[in-house]
Amino acid sequence: MKKLTNELLEELLTECRPYSRDGTVVKDIPGQGTIDQNKLGVCIINMDNEVFSAGDTDMKFTLQSASKIISLMMALDDFGKDEVFQNVGMEPMGDFYNSISHLESHDVTKPFNPMVNAGAIAVPAMIKGKDLEDKFSRILKRLRQITNNNSIKMNEEVYESEKLKGDRNRSLSYFMKSTGAIAHDIDETLDLYFRINSIDVHTTDLAKLGAFFANGGRLLKTGEQIIPMEHINTIEAIMMTSGMYNEAGKYAVEVGFPIKSGVSGCIIGSVPGRCGIGIIGPAINEKGNSTAGGALLQRISRNLELNIFSVIRNV
Amino acid sequence: MKKLTNELLEELLTECRPYSRDGTVVKDIPGQGTIDQNKLGVCIINMDNEVFSAGDTDMKFTLQSASKIISLMMALDDFGKDEVFQNVGMEPMGDFYNSISHLESHDVTKPFNPMVNAGAIAVPAMIKGKDLEDKFSRILKRLRQITNNNSIKMNEEVYESEKLKGDRNRSLSYFMKSTGAIAHDIDETLDLYFRINSIDVHTTDLAKLGAFFANGGRLLKTGEQIIPMEHINTIEAIMMTSGMYNEAGKYAVEVGFPIKSGVSGCIIGSVPGRCGIGIIGPAINEKGNSTAGGALLQRISRNLELNIFSVIRNV
Amino acid sequence: MKKLTNELLEELLTECRPYSRDGTVVKDIPGQGTIDQNKLGVCIINMDNEVFSAGDTDMKFTLQSASKIISLMMALDDFGKDEVFQNVGMEPMGDFYNSISHLESHDVTKPFNPMVNAGAIAVPAMIKGKDLEDKFSRILKRLRQITNNNSIKMNEEVYESEKLKGDRNRSLSYFMKSTGAIAHDIDETLDLYFRINSIDVHTTDLAKLGAFFANGGRLLKTGEQIIPMEHINTIEAIMMTSGMYNEAGKYAVEVGFPIKSGVSGCIIGSVPGRCGIGIIGPAINEKGNSTAGGALLQRISRNLELNIFSVIRNV
Amino acid sequence: MKKLTNELLEELLTECRPYSRDGTVVKDIPGQGTIDQNKLGVCIINMDNEVFSAGDTDMKFTLQSASKIISLMMALDDFGKDEVFQNVGMEPMGDFYNSISHLESHDVTKPFNPMVNAGAIAVPAMIKGKDLEDKFSRILKRLRQITNNNSIKMNEEVYESEKLKGDRNRSLSYFMKSTGAIAHDIDETLDLYFRINSIDVHTTDLAKLGAFFANGGRLLKTGEQIIPMEHINTIEAIMMTSGMYNEAGKYAVEVGFPIKSGVSGCIIGSVPGRCGIGIIGPAINEKGNSTAGGALLQRISRNLELNIFSVIRNV
Repeated sequence: MKKLTNELLEELLTECRPYSRDGTVVKDIPGQGTIDQNKLGVCIINMDNEVFSAGDTDMKFTLQSASKIISLMMALDDFGKDEVFQNVGMEPMGDFYNSISHLESHDVTKPFNPMVNAGAIAVPAMIKGKDLEDKFSRILKRLRQITNNNSIKMNEEVYESEKLKGDRNRSLSYFMKSTGAIAHDIDETLDLYFRINSIDVHTTDLAKLGAFFANGGRLLKTGEQIIPMEHINTIEAIMMTSGMYNEAGKYAVEVGFPIKSGVSGCIIGSVPGRCGIGIIGPAINEKGNSTAGGALLQRISRNLELNIFSVIRNV
Repeated sequence: MKKLTNELLEELLTECRPYSRDGTVVKDIPGQGTIDQNKLGVCIINMDNEVFSAGDTDMKFTLQSASKIISLMMALDDFGKDEVFQNVGMEPMGDFYNSISHLESHDVTKPFNPMVNAGAIAVPAMIKGKDLEDKFSRILKRLRQITNNNSIKMNEEVYESEKLKGDRNRSLSYFMKSTGAIAHDIDETLDLYFRINSIDVHTTDLAKLGAFFANGGRLLKTGEQIIPMEHINTIEAIMMTSGMYNEAGKYAVEVGFPIKSGVSGCIIGSVPGRCGIGIIGPAINEKGNSTAGGALLQRISRNLELNIFSVIRNV
Repeated sequence: MKKLTNELLEELLTECRPYSRDGTVVKDIPGQGTIDQNKLGVCIINMDNEVFSAGDTDMKFTLQSASKIISLMMALDDFGKDEVFQNVGMEPMGDFYNSISHLESHDVTKPFNPMVNAGAIAVPAMIKGKDLEDKFSRILKRLRQITNNNSIKMNEEVYESEKLKGDRNRSLSYFMKSTGAIAHDIDETLDLYFRINSIDVHTTDLAKLGAFFANGGRLLKTGEQIIPMEHINTIEAIMMTSGMYNEAGKYAVEVGFPIKSGVSGCIIGSVPGRCGIGIIGPAINEKGNSTAGGALLQRISRNLELNIFSVIRNV
Repeated sequence: MKKLTNELLEELLTECRPYSRDGTVVKDIPGQGTIDQNKLGVCIINMDNEVFSAGDTDMKFTLQSASKIISLMMALDDFGKDEVFQNVGMEPMGDFYNSISHLESHDVTKPFNPMVNAGAIAVPAMIKGKDLEDKFSRILKRLRQITNNNSIKMNEEVYESEKLKGDRNRSLSYFMKSTGAIAHDIDETLDLYFRINSIDVHTTDLAKLGAFFANGGRLLKTGEQIIPMEHINTIEAIMMTSGMYNEAGKYAVEVGFPIKSGVSGCIIGSVPGRCGIGIIGPAINEKGNSTAGGALLQRISRNLELNIFSVIRNV
């Protein structure tokens, strides 16, 4: 096992940068189209709140699907596990993240899990708030508290764009409405979904969120338990089985701890009891996962022996 | 966290027995049809080789799909990870264990993962041996070594029956042969597959195998490393994402450690660094998992705090 | 071969009424819920414009999917065959009429055919008109001309209801918009689709439309060719292969001439060179077809020897 | 409407030969691999038993899937319509001819229709005969009688090859056996299926068979009714909706009479009351249909006005 240092991260990152050539940068997110596809940045924060980083950590990007774990955390905290999973499943899907077939072909009234689009659209409807603004403001407040970063806010341009190009998500939504899986107004449900996706962050923010998860829902600085550990366990288990869409199985083997990706090329990782990880590498593959970012995660896991099955046997 | 005792297991088992009413005993396995569907037995062996048990632990049953992790272990040891996963995937499937559609609809040349039938049929072809007998004898020898039980052997009657009723598996096999996923002779491949499924065991044997996995591939008694830990990590990760078929996601959340079920109603569990678990509860649901056995596992995990995300944070 | 008389129709209808017990009346169409499910009416008009009828021909009902052949006729006439079939296919689907999976799973950018919902939503976008009102008014005008019935109009209540409960169709529409199969505004496209579905008719109107098709696009009274025969042939061929959804194959065998059903329980039939048929029998099966109406059609075809393969050999 | 002459056929054939470049010749049929892919031949026989032809009519080829209509005819004649369609459906499938998914995904116990592989494998089991030899000999005898060609026989080399490469068909067969759709021995069922596929013919033989169908099951020379017309109507209806696999809808529109293709590049057509057509053009597309042959059929239909909807209106 190697020691976590900035130099080690630098070294691993240099090895992985070439993998960005195997992916492509999503063109239809404003500001994303002109990004250098070789960008790669990583930040790791351990349980002592020490920060390690390498590469393009100054890069800002939207959460996209990495936000799915935040929505799920809010919904679990607001309504509890039983109620949340009456409306969304927890099974891996074995198909692409925006698949609609599975809604029809498996005689189910709810989407497979909260990490794929259909499920992630159903979840925000279970976040408390007197109106859309209030719901979103509660989410933002929570995220700022966890990351200790009050400047986090939504990217207006990306949000507007998400609304414009959201036809596939509208299709998923209306399908779920037709089967009763969603009872709420579709426009409002999707509006909140698009807002959460459009929150701008840096790798440090992802690492802090990951470390908060790794710490079982307790703030790193104060130790205050702000989300019950049971909910964090639930989210982490779902990240293990479904966080990387139809590459989740491969990452469970090759990385071995809970992670979640977004099409902006970000990945958030959480090694229980160890550290949180934030990665950005904007070139993604057809499954929706950062190619260089994924390669980097595998090297980090191997070099620091972060596979949870090893971690647990080694203590 | 409660202390593991025979009394605790007895108590939890009594709570769970009624769940057998939600399942049915598979009728077409010889000897299975006449089994009392309320049977339920559990055995747990910790890293100090201490044995705890409750219920119907004297019951003998065939491994059925629980054998899939043994085949995978042998293949990984014989040919290495790279070669094995050239022929079988590692992604959760999101469908029933004997599904054939996914072989056709996802433009893949290999089955989803080694825990579902299609994948499990492809795996034994990667076990070394000069002929069928030799291959099976190597498997049996390994299993006897790990369980320290030389009386383990194949149930001839079940084996003959498996061959007779194996049309669905034949269909899966010929499909894979037509796409090139299997290169071997189908009759021989299936014969080995049926033999491994037909091995007779007790819950103690499952618990010992689970404890061996929990111990990272080292024999409990001697500490001898007979399977590389990397392979054990691989198998445990796949058990987490796919071991319980299309209930794998639920069990990752509710149990939170690697498990694998068989249609005889058995479940084998492995809590890394903690213990191995063997359960028999012959009444299974339509997903192929023991209803009472699954309920018992959830209670065991909760009472002993064996969810790996908790374990790792608690140390 | 029997002679077509009112008495014969009466006799066949009496035999078929009991089949209504095998179906159910659609509950969510206004005015439909209270209908006696044993209602059954038939009207046949031959090439000499003679009218034969039996049963509940005084019953008014909405066209529902029977309107799909009118939309297709208008689109073919307005834009020609090549352009229309660039946006919608002509293959039978082998699945339920509101299936969405096929849009995703067959790597196609267009819906299977104009007789299933997805296709029928894409078609009205190819009807000329300066706005929604104009397009619908052109359709109504054409239908009134063909049926020689100026009182035909839309049922406002059904139309409002269609808009309210149209989530499944919205899902299909947004999916097609996301793949580029539809370029138009979804709300407007669906509004026109719902209007056409909500047109109120009697069996006589269906029979007249069927007779107009049977006459190759010429008005019965004047012989004026108002739609090119090539377009009528195209529509009739598609009715043969897809008009009865996933019972189309059975009806091609058992009835043997072009027909199209609607969930109001109506069926329109066209026997080229012979006659047009209108049927209403509000109890439908799960495939969306009138049970008593379908049985009646089979008896009519057999008694009058209207199977086109027979007709053509007998002349 | 043009007059049918050898010159017209020659002219249309010359126009269509270039379409062979859009297809490929199946490589794994013995003797097929070396065929010039520009070959194209056509033979038409009318109800007066007059023979017209053009192109490569001297070419011998195996029936392949064109044999599916012969099996169906034999089964209908031996067991009647009710019994045959208890074991195979009559619905178009909307998928590739060797698809297996549909067997699983539509909760059906029988294959979609007798024109796709799964269905065509189930049909020969319903042909009478005391053993395999006897069954095949009855089929051959019937075919020789209809074509008045006693030299028709099986191509041994193709038959042996079919058996060797039949894994996909074995997969379909065992799947149907596992669901109960086939009760017979798979090896024998497939053996008969492979034999029928391997019968060698010329375009004249196809044209004669097509003319026999067009004549409603009566021998052209003697007028003797050897197959009931009802069975012929049934087969022709199924050819219309499913004879060209997932191009059946297009051919119903563009050709408009019953046809059936085989992967050897042959097509058999039957225009009720008019003529039979045999075509060979070995280059096929991915749907399994001859590209040049399909183009030629469309031209023949248009020039001779053989679309049945037109034929029937014109008489």
